Amino acid sequence: MSETRLSSAELPEPSLDEDDRMKPEFVSAVLGHVDDGDTEAARALVEPLHPADIADLFELTPVERRRALAAAISDLLDADVFAEMNEHVREGLIDALDPAQVAEIAAELDTDDAVAIIEDMEEEDQRAVLRALDPDDRAAIEEALSFPEESAGRLMQRDLIAVPEHWTIGNVLDYLRSNEDLTTDFWEIFVVDAQHKPIGTCKLSWILRTPVEIAVADVMAREQTLIPVDMDQEEVALRFQKYALISAAVIDPLGRLVGMITVDDVVHIIQEEAGEDILKLSGAGDGDINEPVLESYKARVRWLIANLGTALVASSIIAIFEGTIAQMVALATLMPIVAGVGGNAGTQTMAVTVRALATNQLTQSNTWRTISREIRIALLNGSTVAVVIGVGVAAVFANPALGMVIAAAMMTNIIIAGLAGVLVPLALDRRDIDPAVSSSVFVTMTTDSMGFLAFLGLATASGITG
Amino acid sequence: MSETRLSSAELPEPSLDEDDRMKPEFVSAVLGHVDDGDTEAARALVEPLHPADIADLFELTPVERRRALAAAISDLLDADVFAEMNEHVREGLIDALDPAQVAEIAAELDTDDAVAIIEDMEEEDQRAVLRALDPDDRAAIEEALSFPEESAGRLMQRDLIAVPEHWTIGNVLDYLRSNEDLTTDFWEIFVVDAQHKPIGTCKLSWILRTPVEIAVADVMAREQTLIPVDMDQEEVALRFQKYALISAAVIDPLGRLVGMITVDDVVHIIQEEAGEDILKLSGAGDGDINEPVLESYKARVRWLIANLGTALVASSIIAIFEGTIAQMVALATLMPIVAGVGGNAGTQTMAVTVRALATNQLTQSNTWRTISREIRIALLNGSTVAVVIGVGVAAVFANPALGMVIAAAMMTNIIIAGLAGVLVPLALDRRDIDPAVSSSVFVTMTTDSMGFLAFLGLATASGITG
Repeated sequence: MSETRLSSAELPEPSLDEDDRMKPEFVSAVLGHVDDGDTEAARALVEPLHPADIADLFELTPVERRRALAAAISDLLDADVFAEMNEHVREGLIDALDPAQVAEIAAELDTDDAVAIIEDMEEEDQRAVLRALDPDDRAAIEEALSFPEESAGRLMQRDLIAVPEHWTIGNVLDYLRSNEDLTTDFWEIFVVDAQHKPIGTCKLSWILRTPVEIAVADVMAREQTLIPVDMDQEEVALRFQKYALISAAVIDPLGRLVGMITVDDVVHIIQEEAGEDILKLSGAGDGDINEPVLESYKARVRWLIANLGTALVASSIIAIFEGTIAQMVALATLMPIVAGVGGNAGTQTMAVTVRALATNQLTQSNTWRTISREIRIALLNGSTVAVVIGVGVAAVFANPALGMVIAAAMMTNIIIAGLAGVLVPLALDRRDIDPAVSSSVFVTMTTDSMGFLAFLGLATASGITG
Repeated sequence: MSETRLSSAELPEPSLDEDDRMKPEFVSAVLGHVDDGDTEAARALVEPLHPADIADLFELTPVERRRALAAAISDLLDADVFAEMNEHVREGLIDALDPAQVAEIAAELDTDDAVAIIEDMEEEDQRAVLRALDPDDRAAIEEALSFPEESAGRLMQRDLIAVPEHWTIGNVLDYLRSNEDLTTDFWEIFVVDAQHKPIGTCKLSWILRTPVEIAVADVMAREQTLIPVDMDQEEVALRFQKYALISAAVIDPLGRLVGMITVDDVVHIIQEEAGEDILKLSGAGDGDINEPVLESYKARVRWLIANLGTALVASSIIAIFEGTIAQMVALATLMPIVAGVGGNAGTQTMAVTVRALATNQLTQSNTWRTISREIRIALLNGSTVAVVIGVGVAAVFANPALGMVIAAAMMTNIIIAGLAGVLVPLALDRRDIDPAVSSSVFVTMTTDSMGFLAFLGLATASGITG
């Protein structure tokens, strides 16, 4: 592209606001031209955009108008735009294309992006697209599809620069200059031994700064992080983040170099993996606003039904104390406070524990320290909240005994909440169950049930109702 | 370092398990040697580790033993290790050092890492460290500190390669080869005009692949993403992610090149910003397991007290219906179900909305579409849960009217929950308040209060208690 994309600091970009969000007026203007059949005007607006912004434009266009937009700006809707698009939006557009068109898009992309587009298609369509590809592309994509979903094998590119260890910097430069077919999408080169096993990496800046007669083996970094081809993408992302990698070699089970992952392919995974815990904890599934309504409904209603089940447990505990409540209805008024604040305290601890587990900060070495830390925080929180509610209830109801009961119940429940918030995710993690997915149900059940039990139980035992 | 760090697929690394977590036996072994005064043995274990893993070792060591560990392996505890360390752990160690030692560490780091270490110190200590630095380093760090916290100015490095547009590739190569002082930490070079304004970037792979006589201006990409020096780091991270950047030029308000941000400095911000929403929503503050207990207590108790306030609102609504409850105590048993499942439904919608806002997916263009989408999901969820609970209660209590009441209340509350879950974060975002921080309190108050109001109100109005 010939246009310079200037930052908002220098010249306001007409299509984006200061927070890099696409302006509604811009979206309306483009769609207005599409409706009027003025495709030239629509194209003129869209042409200066980065592929990622064109992808955003489609996401912001109502579902039923996306195909008309695609038809109007079809020549600007290139493979890069599809690669940047939200998967639900992309699926909607890809479904309208025939396999030959999809194959044309896939052929232009890096293997990892092509795989991302093809892997979600139905098997029959997938086969049709693969048949329409030329043999090299087809082989590369079929090989990638043979690795598990969300593994390094699906993320990696096969286009990379690998050189033998006996080469000099001069050999490398000649090789890079004389081979037109080589990729330009690399930031480091890999040095391999006779078995094609990676033995070191060389940043391009080192190659540029080193005299040509020096051997590659003398400038390369022998310390390198290798990614097994079947490694889960979440682990890949954690490694890139921890070791501040720009690219990394992917190796097969025999240790041979089979591909390369670059940081730009990993950045969105880091963001997704870190962001999805909040959605999982709330039971919102994928939580993508572009997901079809029925899919969101299916993902969410399961957790609401599970929550209904745990609410019934709490409810049955209240039922035990119906006699006590009948004697003193104020207990029914106050009991949700004990359960609710306990639930909040449990959620705090649970969120901290889930994040610490996800980022590998919480390991066997510091498990007991973390549990004891949460107990101390719970004691402090519990005392504070118990005093506030105890004094308040004693005063408002002119009943010091009732104040004592609710204070003791609150203290008890916040300590139980702290324990449940740290122990439930830990126990799930030990059993290799993702703690973000199911902790909430157990923690809420515990804090609700124990809140009601502690409050109504203490009220009954203390005899304040009589 | 001379050691090759092999991946777990090739040879199991003795210090890390298959999930890249440091093994507890390894931590114990190192600390055992430290306790025995056998610093040689401790050093032998720690030396092969990557700085990020040495930083992890300190995080996994109990607070009171960290200084002894630092003393034992002091020569391995270099600036890179401090740069990788959790800030709370680092502060604990830095506090024990005198300003000259801190200055020595800071002088070895890139400006951004040095700033990260110094910015959290108390002002007096900060000044002492700055005085101990040599004038160049001091000027660079003082300039960085003059930018707001969490801004691009604090993240950027000043060491970068900028060349005039009239140069050829050959000029660039000569310049890079003949200047020993230049950084090697770059992936792209910037082309600037006479006013030092960036006009294009050149990937190193292009420089390596282009004949020496070609002008830089003919191969550079004119399309570039410029980062204003005062841009918030969250926006910087979103830009890097959206446009898949490896590095980007930072410009001052006049558009002149003043620094460079590379993706490795941004990756941990992407992770933190995406991960912190879950902690904010739960009211757990920073939510770092290395945070001192008192700080965690202060961060969390505020939200528990706020939650106590909202629970009192719900409680006062129940109080209105004390007469009804006295007539039919079963209502007290059932009412938490309506509030609880509604709260869960609200949290689901809220989590989705908060994430969509944080990733710029939800903008003015699709606000109404998103709200209507959530209403449709709420109608589906509400109908399903209402039927299940309605039929169940009617059967168990042999009271079809009570079943009707709880079904209607559940339906009502889930719809209200869906609305609150999307409208509360949107309203806060419009007022430039971070929706992750305070949405929870409002949404929970709404679902609790409306749950009790709908259920007890309908029970009273329907006359089932009489």
